[in-house]
Amino acid sequence: MQKINVLIDCDPGHDDVMAILLALANRDKLNILGVSTVAGNQTLDKVTLNVRKLYTYLGIKTPIAVGMERPIIRELKTGDFVHGESGLDGFEFPEPTVEADSTNAIIFMREKLLSCHEKSVLIATGPLTNVGLLLRTFPEVKDKIEYISLMGGSIFKGNVTPFAEYNIYADPEAAHIVFNSGIPIVMSGLDVTHKAYITNEDILELERIDGKVTRMCAKLLKFFTKFHTNEGYKNFPLHDVCAVMYVLNKDIFEGQNLLVDIDTSDTMHRGRTAADLREWVIHENTNTLALLDVDREKFIHDLFAAFIKLDKELI
Amino acid sequence: MQKINVLIDCDPGHDDVMAILLALANRDKLNILGVSTVAGNQTLDKVTLNVRKLYTYLGIKTPIAVGMERPIIRELKTGDFVHGESGLDGFEFPEPTVEADSTNAIIFMREKLLSCHEKSVLIATGPLTNVGLLLRTFPEVKDKIEYISLMGGSIFKGNVTPFAEYNIYADPEAAHIVFNSGIPIVMSGLDVTHKAYITNEDILELERIDGKVTRMCAKLLKFFTKFHTNEGYKNFPLHDVCAVMYVLNKDIFEGQNLLVDIDTSDTMHRGRTAADLREWVIHENTNTLALLDVDREKFIHDLFAAFIKLDKELI
Amino acid sequence: MQKINVLIDCDPGHDDVMAILLALANRDKLNILGVSTVAGNQTLDKVTLNVRKLYTYLGIKTPIAVGMERPIIRELKTGDFVHGESGLDGFEFPEPTVEADSTNAIIFMREKLLSCHEKSVLIATGPLTNVGLLLRTFPEVKDKIEYISLMGGSIFKGNVTPFAEYNIYADPEAAHIVFNSGIPIVMSGLDVTHKAYITNEDILELERIDGKVTRMCAKLLKFFTKFHTNEGYKNFPLHDVCAVMYVLNKDIFEGQNLLVDIDTSDTMHRGRTAADLREWVIHENTNTLALLDVDREKFIHDLFAAFIKLDKELI
Amino acid sequence: MQKINVLIDCDPGHDDVMAILLALANRDKLNILGVSTVAGNQTLDKVTLNVRKLYTYLGIKTPIAVGMERPIIRELKTGDFVHGESGLDGFEFPEPTVEADSTNAIIFMREKLLSCHEKSVLIATGPLTNVGLLLRTFPEVKDKIEYISLMGGSIFKGNVTPFAEYNIYADPEAAHIVFNSGIPIVMSGLDVTHKAYITNEDILELERIDGKVTRMCAKLLKFFTKFHTNEGYKNFPLHDVCAVMYVLNKDIFEGQNLLVDIDTSDTMHRGRTAADLREWVIHENTNTLALLDVDREKFIHDLFAAFIKLDKELI
Repeated sequence: MQKINVLIDCDPGHDDVMAILLALANRDKLNILGVSTVAGNQTLDKVTLNVRKLYTYLGIKTPIAVGMERPIIRELKTGDFVHGESGLDGFEFPEPTVEADSTNAIIFMREKLLSCHEKSVLIATGPLTNVGLLLRTFPEVKDKIEYISLMGGSIFKGNVTPFAEYNIYADPEAAHIVFNSGIPIVMSGLDVTHKAYITNEDILELERIDGKVTRMCAKLLKFFTKFHTNEGYKNFPLHDVCAVMYVLNKDIFEGQNLLVDIDTSDTMHRGRTAADLREWVIHENTNTLALLDVDREKFIHDLFAAFIKLDKELI
Repeated sequence: MQKINVLIDCDPGHDDVMAILLALANRDKLNILGVSTVAGNQTLDKVTLNVRKLYTYLGIKTPIAVGMERPIIRELKTGDFVHGESGLDGFEFPEPTVEADSTNAIIFMREKLLSCHEKSVLIATGPLTNVGLLLRTFPEVKDKIEYISLMGGSIFKGNVTPFAEYNIYADPEAAHIVFNSGIPIVMSGLDVTHKAYITNEDILELERIDGKVTRMCAKLLKFFTKFHTNEGYKNFPLHDVCAVMYVLNKDIFEGQNLLVDIDTSDTMHRGRTAADLREWVIHENTNTLALLDVDREKFIHDLFAAFIKLDKELI
Repeated sequence: MQKINVLIDCDPGHDDVMAILLALANRDKLNILGVSTVAGNQTLDKVTLNVRKLYTYLGIKTPIAVGMERPIIRELKTGDFVHGESGLDGFEFPEPTVEADSTNAIIFMREKLLSCHEKSVLIATGPLTNVGLLLRTFPEVKDKIEYISLMGGSIFKGNVTPFAEYNIYADPEAAHIVFNSGIPIVMSGLDVTHKAYITNEDILELERIDGKVTRMCAKLLKFFTKFHTNEGYKNFPLHDVCAVMYVLNKDIFEGQNLLVDIDTSDTMHRGRTAADLREWVIHENTNTLALLDVDREKFIHDLFAAFIKLDKELI
Repeated sequence: MQKINVLIDCDPGHDDVMAILLALANRDKLNILGVSTVAGNQTLDKVTLNVRKLYTYLGIKTPIAVGMERPIIRELKTGDFVHGESGLDGFEFPEPTVEADSTNAIIFMREKLLSCHEKSVLIATGPLTNVGLLLRTFPEVKDKIEYISLMGGSIFKGNVTPFAEYNIYADPEAAHIVFNSGIPIVMSGLDVTHKAYITNEDILELERIDGKVTRMCAKLLKFFTKFHTNEGYKNFPLHDVCAVMYVLNKDIFEGQNLLVDIDTSDTMHRGRTAADLREWVIHENTNTLALLDVDREKFIHDLFAAFIKLDKELI
């Protein structure tokens, strides 16, 4: 079977790291064209440093491209309240020796997409600034993207506001470009990511597996759960992992084809992924497969299997 | 047991008529202080005429007060596409002999509320223009209202727009006043009213019961279902009936206490009853009991029982 | 010549008081039907108390009606930063013995307007809450209003925001009702009121004239100028006086017929009186005479003459 | 004296062409790095074709780069009602032999700016889509731009809406990026461009001057005046010319340093260049020199002199 070309645009972030690890462990199925960074969970400098640290720790050499330091229109509000000062608190990485590519991520993404004969899948786990600017500045890449698998949005309830999820809220104008681009969107919104959660028991289990990757993950997850516990969450959703997992294993997800629009107004609904749910209205122009459910057991099983596989490969 | 004082503010409208009939049949439990009209399903003249015709046909003498002919800020958009040219198409009423009261509904409502020793329940089944102006112009009535049982809004999906229900959309500024008034709101939104539906079989059953009221209702409902069938609906929600039924029989409903705000912006979300559904966020200042489910069988049973009871009383 | 019936709706406020005095001094030309109060420059209690104090001090008995304690939709933001703790700081009034009428101002205004055979002029010098609710709740009064002379708005620049003037900003929804009511509007916006200013020399001149009214006015004006000097103003606009002066002496004003709409959005332009100024576009439906210039010398002369006249009448 | 490096971003467009001609005639003062095109007055294909035709007709070889075919967020609305089917109706150009550069305008602009040792002036006479995307995607260019001289906006009145000028209205999000970029803006808004008008007499005079350029200009201007006469304009503003003229001859303009923000809301004020004009408020962070007046006689004189000079050079 032919490998799927993927570009990963991210802002690590704890769950971004798990998502990247899942992709790295599946390089027999995925041809990872590169990883690009975008300001979000933390500032651009910090999230880029986090990828470099991770790659140094793992000895990975896939190219890293540096993207946008702020949203298209409004100011950046980072998610540091979730991910800590570094954006990836909880594990002590060695000093990074892997360097980022000198090419701007927008140009990097364009080149990578155009260089492939086959279409690629664009995976986005941060604010959509890079992706939005890419699609608007270089519309010729649209024909080279099979679909965009993104973590962001929510059909039923938000997190940073009652109605909006962080990644979309952080750059609604970029999201507006992406959702209206004509490229099929697979949206791992809070509806599904809150079902793709990890429990304290799962983390205990992970701790018991010895390995470079599993050890790191267990530590990172312990930090991650602290914020969530304080906030009143009872479980710990691995949001970004869904965007990669869907590409690898569509069957464990359920979703609905919807027409989703992005609210870019300055009202209470700013950043909402607004979907028409009236079942008596027929939309022929749905643009989004909104994932709504996942088989959590399989999800965690596959994720842990990936960590273990990666640990074996790293030896 | 003491009777509950109720004021009914409405814009009949097919389902408004069913709601009024349910109240009239239960005058042993409800002390109906009066019925006021508001532009909505049709123009003010037409909906007022509809109440007068109904009262003439039934021989009822509860006072009728005429309210507002248009929303507080924006222009009126009637619901004539649902309720037909008269606002109550489907049954030939005799010429009305019952006259409306000469007092403006806002003053009428104030006087009725202040005249009662006990608090009253305000039932509203149309746009909230009258209620909003009443509360803002005469804030002293607030202490005389136990709660407002209204049909309007929706937590999950709209009807006239993907996100907004007609009654709220028709006058969001009025709704904003009402939901922020400090008076407890019981909201029969589309979430519950779409579960309080009537079927073609139910209507056939109703047709078989001989009586002045049942006959009229069967004919009105047949017209009502026509619109819904054309629009792609598979069942026929008796929206407004819920607002009265709740006052009579709380036990057949289920709901959730929520903090609901009204979107008065000019965006796609105008008229949305926006509720924070994040279960990990604790709101101590919920303002609304949003009804979300109903025992449909009991609902229809009680409604039909009311029609039959009324028919017996009218003889 | 027949007297002009006037209703004065106000929120005193220093310049409101000057406006009332100007009207009181011209009772040979104006038939003052009453004065109603509205929350604005200060809370409703305080501005009502200020009218009662003024009337007690002057021995005036025109009825006072108490209006709305807050804007139609949003929360009240008073103008206490301009008018001080009492809303009328700077002069020690005696304890008030004049009482306010027990009738709600909305009903009071309706009754007064309907009781006159001739049409009346409605003068409004505060937020338009009372006037807006009056027009919406009792549309029958529209035929009894010749025009509304109001202080509020601005064609070119705001005061509380870069674009909005305080009275309109305080209740844009009410202003929306008023400007779209079909009743002709004469708008004394900041464009003209900033030209209807008083100088320190004028106040010195006033101080030299001995009298109960002139003495009080000089003291009130001295307080009033303090705020303006601190804010960087170089002269002291007697905003509200314009709304009364226009009714008495149209000739000293210049203006332009414009189509003015009120911005009720939540953007930076909230409360802006937005006028289409494109001279190459012809509007047949102008709703507002926007005053843009005034003969300041005559304006101050007439105002001082009124104070002196009133002082003579009070002896 | 050292030449000024300029990049010209445009959407020709009759007045764009005059602006380009003015620049071309002054190549002793301006080092024209290139011309880039953007959708606006007409579609991208058409405005690019217009530059190619003009360059072919004149035998000019400055590079042409093709920019964005649509605004950043909303759909394109062209100005074809002003500029005709081709975007440059009124003169029959020969078939173009000059080709556009194959590099995307955003990359082209970046390369040109970074290639110069000195800072450049960016002249923009169309919607700001290219400039906005350039500044957001490649923030490193900011240090290479001395200022942006743009035609767009209006302090006092709009054209396509009562409040907004076409170029800004066409892409307010792009304008938001540009005005908030920190780069000094010189704004030739309608305030000044409506004073930089040409009269029928001027055009008659131009017709009398024999030359390849003057003849073309006279014909183009005759078409241009037709639209304006029909719309009720009494003179014919040469909007875009101001943006170039300012770079060449600052002395004939007067302006004011202001803090200008761009309204990106969906209200009546969308696309407004909103400036705080309160003279009693001191802004230390003004971002825009808004041109407000021009010496029209000198303006037309210099423009015609440029046409004549160019005609001499072309021989």
